[in-house]
Amino acid sequence: MAKKGEFGLIDFINAHFHAPAGMVGIGDDCAIVPGPDEDTLVSTDMLLEGIHFLRKHSTPEDIGWKSAAVNLSDIAAMGGIPVATFLSIALPKDAQGEWAQRFIKGYAEISGQFGVPLLGGDTTSSLRDIAINVGIKGRCDHGKALGRGGAKVGHTIFVTGPLGDSGAGLKAILTGVERTPAVEELIRRHLRPMPRVAEGQKLLATGMVGAMMDLSDGLASDLGHILRASGVGAIIELNSLPLSPEIVEVCRKHRWRARTLAASAGEDYELLLTGPAELARAVDIPLYPIGTITEAHGIEWLRGGKPTKFKAQGFTHF
Amino acid sequence: MAKKGEFGLIDFINAHFHAPAGMVGIGDDCAIVPGPDEDTLVSTDMLLEGIHFLRKHSTPEDIGWKSAAVNLSDIAAMGGIPVATFLSIALPKDAQGEWAQRFIKGYAEISGQFGVPLLGGDTTSSLRDIAINVGIKGRCDHGKALGRGGAKVGHTIFVTGPLGDSGAGLKAILTGVERTPAVEELIRRHLRPMPRVAEGQKLLATGMVGAMMDLSDGLASDLGHILRASGVGAIIELNSLPLSPEIVEVCRKHRWRARTLAASAGEDYELLLTGPAELARAVDIPLYPIGTITEAHGIEWLRGGKPTKFKAQGFTHF
Repeated sequence: MAKKGEFGLIDFINAHFHAPAGMVGIGDDCAIVPGPDEDTLVSTDMLLEGIHFLRKHSTPEDIGWKSAAVNLSDIAAMGGIPVATFLSIALPKDAQGEWAQRFIKGYAEISGQFGVPLLGGDTTSSLRDIAINVGIKGRCDHGKALGRGGAKVGHTIFVTGPLGDSGAGLKAILTGVERTPAVEELIRRHLRPMPRVAEGQKLLATGMVGAMMDLSDGLASDLGHILRASGVGAIIELNSLPLSPEIVEVCRKHRWRARTLAASAGEDYELLLTGPAELARAVDIPLYPIGTITEAHGIEWLRGGKPTKFKAQGFTHF
Repeated sequence: MAKKGEFGLIDFINAHFHAPAGMVGIGDDCAIVPGPDEDTLVSTDMLLEGIHFLRKHSTPEDIGWKSAAVNLSDIAAMGGIPVATFLSIALPKDAQGEWAQRFIKGYAEISGQFGVPLLGGDTTSSLRDIAINVGIKGRCDHGKALGRGGAKVGHTIFVTGPLGDSGAGLKAILTGVERTPAVEELIRRHLRPMPRVAEGQKLLATGMVGAMMDLSDGLASDLGHILRASGVGAIIELNSLPLSPEIVEVCRKHRWRARTLAASAGEDYELLLTGPAELARAVDIPLYPIGTITEAHGIEWLRGGKPTKFKAQGFTHF
């Protein structure tokens, strides 16, 4: 789902539409349509050739995988259970044969891992570029979905896994560095992100989570959404951001800034959440504390406990 | 939802995915996810600049209207109640300002007429062409949705309104004929189709409908889907196809074939359905009988009761 509201259109849409009572509309990872026992979660994401991917950098299977993965991640972000996906795909002539079939194989591979059927969609020709839209339907117990507005002052801020790997993998692709095993692993994490579906459901089940979302645009950008929705601020300790051995190795070798990637590069699709410190002991998944929710607005960045003038870098898709 | 299965991809998808027990997947106007009391209906349609519309032929408001209308029509085709839509839109730089806002105004206009909120979506840049995907969620009583497989031998075939107007309007745009009031009306029907949502619900409520769908690809093509899904054939009387005064006037003037347009041009978004002959008296909406379901396969075309070698023409979007 749109998070940043590109070119201001989302504000304009909000002025022309209002979600009826009980429904949650634009502004979270999923829309929520309430039912008597269960709520329906819906999300939709569009991927464009030339904007979100280049055919020369990804196999068709990778793009199929990622198209489904980012939508599964939107359901995970609410603590929901994915039910079915819907795929619309517009293909230029040169992608209507083998490319399309390999795309579907990648899409089916990750869908099968999560037991989620593809129930419908649309296929059409396009003049030049590939356009993909995936919609997903999920569910969760009525009123239980985890949104962005529940962060409370004093909450610990957690992430479910290492940050920056996807951004480092992208950087490796774009700079063409030597493909060592560590580089290959970072590229794999960029091309084949793993949505934290089971983790999201376990976190919801604790009843202890304040706010939750998935990390698609990068920590600095995404945490900002939680802070604004919750009316709070945050202190983040850069030295606490979890790093994989691969990103440490590759960044050391190429003199890239691992913590900058971890704090601002996107598409890791780990979960970002807040809750009491004891949450980490209440659930059997890795949870990395990276900071604290405060009363002040915005994010205060610390490095080794000292304020730092860390400036998040912009994020591009490829 | 995809009906024709362009470039054979849908067969390939079906080989890689199977709808779980109780769910209806690819092959009808909507997917059906069953619930204890109500079933959820989901459909999704993609519209591409250069394939489905040209900016020089339609205002942004028209394209916004039509994007929502064709999805509302998918819910109407099942006899369902529309609940919410989801809009993904990819826009090149020159469409990110006024064009986008005018698009949303048209989208909001028809959504407001049917009381359907826009609950979410995605906005992104594109390199060149506009790409639009609309997803829609609807509902109907459990097990009641009207699919394509229920046509029975002896059923009368009905449509809910005049056919060919949209195709004639498109032809008027493409040939640049003089814009008389009748021509303007046909063009309006092409650019601003009216989904038969209330009609679909009334037809479902009779409990008498066999098969139903909406006319998007043209009678000849769409009736073929009902016949294949139901394992039956049909006789269609070309002289019974309902024609508007406008199409009669314009086709007479320009020597266009009104019945050919009515039988094969697309995007009228009237409902096509089968049921006992007395259905017409059981519901307070116009129903035009156009033929009969038979045991033979395929469509037998009659003109004035005599077999005719009518050949449906291909359909293009613009």
